[in-house]
Amino acid sequence: MATLICDITMSLDGFVAGPNPTLEEPLGEGGDRLHQWAYDLESWRKRHGLSGGTQNVDSGIVDEWLTTTGAIVMGRRMFSGGQGPWEDDPNADGWWGDEPAFGVPVFVLTHHARDPVPKQGGTTFNFVTDGIESALEQAAEAAGNRAVGLSGGADVVQQYLRAGLLDELQIHVAPLLLGGGVRLLDNLGGDPPELDCTRVVDSPAVTHLRYRILR
Amino acid sequence: MATLICDITMSLDGFVAGPNPTLEEPLGEGGDRLHQWAYDLESWRKRHGLSGGTQNVDSGIVDEWLTTTGAIVMGRRMFSGGQGPWEDDPNADGWWGDEPAFGVPVFVLTHHARDPVPKQGGTTFNFVTDGIESALEQAAEAAGNRAVGLSGGADVVQQYLRAGLLDELQIHVAPLLLGGGVRLLDNLGGDPPELDCTRVVDSPAVTHLRYRILR
Repeated sequence: MATLICDITMSLDGFVAGPNPTLEEPLGEGGDRLHQWAYDLESWRKRHGLSGGTQNVDSGIVDEWLTTTGAIVMGRRMFSGGQGPWEDDPNADGWWGDEPAFGVPVFVLTHHARDPVPKQGGTTFNFVTDGIESALEQAAEAAGNRAVGLSGGADVVQQYLRAGLLDELQIHVAPLLLGGGVRLLDNLGGDPPELDCTRVVDSPAVTHLRYRILR
Repeated sequence: MATLICDITMSLDGFVAGPNPTLEEPLGEGGDRLHQWAYDLESWRKRHGLSGGTQNVDSGIVDEWLTTTGAIVMGRRMFSGGQGPWEDDPNADGWWGDEPAFGVPVFVLTHHARDPVPKQGGTTFNFVTDGIESALEQAAEAAGNRAVGLSGGADVVQQYLRAGLLDELQIHVAPLLLGGGVRLLDNLGGDPPELDCTRVVDSPAVTHLRYRILR
């Protein structure tokens, strides 16, 4: 089975989205600041069809993710991006545009069946209604010998952590306090897994903490 | 005025103590694991009257703290260490023994006046009843040209952060999940201060993240 790696940006106070998410601000108040570290990087810009940008340790981290990730699992709310409820508009394309930057098959966890939505540039959104293990199996099959990336949101990360299905967790700690919002590492239960810190990479913009999850 | 620096160990999921603190386990269930990274260090052992120990980047961080800290501010619960309520035993010595490892004046925030308690080795516990600004002023006076250390607990750190009185925050991120307990960066209100990440030092045992608090 492919390795399941969660890559996610978190504020120092533990939030992956700010308070009060809306259609205009799906990452909540101030939540767009979380990802500020990535927007000017060459590897990020290239994947979004833009030229130029910065090359540094952070772009190396993004490059690594792009190179090693063969498929992605994400939750329904991350796909629909605050558009809701899903049930009201089963054909909603989410907020990802015609050519999402993933470039690999994406498996969206949902309770509502839907045909796959192919996009330009290699991204196809597939919809999985029979649970997190099935989503992981389908993504692993699609990923081949690359890793499966777990993108969020927080509730989906927590589900995979509680089920013992997450192999690695790389948290990009943004140097900011959001003061509220959606916490990443919450609802883990009374017996959370052990961690092994395998790598720390830092720049003034962000600190990348990588952990292996021990069963 | 002296610089106020908070040095505190936090789990990856944001807790500085585990759930259900008791007199036997004042750091809560599993909370003693937070500080595991320090126990074998030469600088830590020396300050606790023990010989030997490891010298590495982590002992350097502890050494730096010992060298640069001229006085300490802490909350009442951190002093009394789960002994409670303070009001029932105004002469309780806390859990710090005859020769606490601080070696500098300590200013304990409390609502109950009490004469200073001198200990061996340079530690004197002073009790401040007129608020966090007064405690900082008294500690700064005692610290001379060294920094004032803010040791916790979480509620006191939050009070100083909200009041805009904290200059630096060094979080020692322990590679573990507690799953519950006392959160450090909580109750910060809707307009938390900006941060500037000034240093990252890491070892397999712990990651030291240092931030300047911008007003």
